[in-house]
Amino acid sequence: MKTPHFPPDNVQVLAFDIFGTVVDWHGSIVREMQTLYPQVDGDAFALAWREGYQPAMQRVMSGELGWTLIDDLNRMILDSLLPKFSLSHLSETERLHLNRVWHRLHAWPDSVAGLTRLKSRFTLTTLSNGNIGLLTNMAKRAGLPWDCVLSAEVFRAYKPDPATYLGVAKVFNVAPEQVMLVAAHHEDLAGARACGLRTAYIERAFEFGAGHLKNVSPQAGNDLHALDLNALADQLGC
Amino acid sequence: MKTPHFPPDNVQVLAFDIFGTVVDWHGSIVREMQTLYPQVDGDAFALAWREGYQPAMQRVMSGELGWTLIDDLNRMILDSLLPKFSLSHLSETERLHLNRVWHRLHAWPDSVAGLTRLKSRFTLTTLSNGNIGLLTNMAKRAGLPWDCVLSAEVFRAYKPDPATYLGVAKVFNVAPEQVMLVAAHHEDLAGARACGLRTAYIERAFEFGAGHLKNVSPQAGNDLHALDLNALADQLGC
Repeated sequence: MKTPHFPPDNVQVLAFDIFGTVVDWHGSIVREMQTLYPQVDGDAFALAWREGYQPAMQRVMSGELGWTLIDDLNRMILDSLLPKFSLSHLSETERLHLNRVWHRLHAWPDSVAGLTRLKSRFTLTTLSNGNIGLLTNMAKRAGLPWDCVLSAEVFRAYKPDPATYLGVAKVFNVAPEQVMLVAAHHEDLAGARACGLRTAYIERAFEFGAGHLKNVSPQAGNDLHALDLNALADQLGC
Repeated sequence: MKTPHFPPDNVQVLAFDIFGTVVDWHGSIVREMQTLYPQVDGDAFALAWREGYQPAMQRVMSGELGWTLIDDLNRMILDSLLPKFSLSHLSETERLHLNRVWHRLHAWPDSVAGLTRLKSRFTLTTLSNGNIGLLTNMAKRAGLPWDCVLSAEVFRAYKPDPATYLGVAKVFNVAPEQVMLVAAHHEDLAGARACGLRTAYIERAFEFGAGHLKNVSPQAGNDLHALDLNALADQLGC
């Protein structure tokens, strides 16, 4: 692991991955399923929905599908999942409501406090494959204090496409090393690092639920490694 | 003037024009010029800079220039103005700093309070020809509490291109009549209205300075007409 610079003294912009890093998609979906459809295994349902995500984006990036918002990819995956969980009877209204659970995800307990501290010193933007409307609705509901909402939708490319990471630097007219990606996923961080961005790994051991603990041990190459967003604020002197 | 619906009961998103509507470009530029270059007529300089704006965008929309951010259009206009105001000697660093005055514009006195009230009930987004970085830096400095930062940069078209107004509705997955454009300029509001959006005119009699009072009398077609953003919040029951 290279020697970190504490704090990276020319970073101006923190760009945040959202699903798993700032909000708890697994726990939020499990809780909604327990309320709406208690007969379903919410844990298995949440994991299956999320597992469909990368293959769906791959279909877009390969050209098989045209440019598609995550709201629409989530709906395609949902429709394919419902029969497997004996929910084929759901009406259009029920499907629309369930699909919007991604707009209603809850923040991790440290997120609002950590972001508020970080905002005093850095420009905070989302950098998510989620669409702008989803990210805005989520932020308004969960109280996430973004300065800016950037998304794959702006760049018409999903992470880890370099157009997304370099797009953030271009939007703010700064060098790539003045942007730090904050994420709980090493492949996202590796994509950012390859473009010259700084990187901070956030552990989120419970991303997939208490029954599926994630290996959160440090990996080489990241500038920072933090338990959560409050710990990141500590490390960045906020 | 058609009978207004008070409040328009299905509006979910308020989209704000920025320059003149939310921030005081004329007064802010005059004050910076008084500090930096007191020998220059700041009023004339501010007006000349702004007058170059529509023709510059027109060069992009006609295809004469490729897609260009407002930061870059502002710089082109600035460079063309400096000789006329005996400022040809400005260094590159000084020009860069002066051009960034558009990131440092001050909010009108009612803007932060009015937006904060409106935010309790509506999703607030910018819809400006200004670029995302400019709008984000401005908001962070002036304390403008946007939920989302939308710009011509996202839609790769300047207002009054329909792609911008309809783009807001598409981003939030709502019908055009669920979006209200808030602006101090009738041509902007007319463009929005032609796309099916609701419209609110904000007076801003001093947009061009106390020496150039604007005619702010009501015009037909707008749903609302308000002195300022606090008055708009009153009318919308916030």
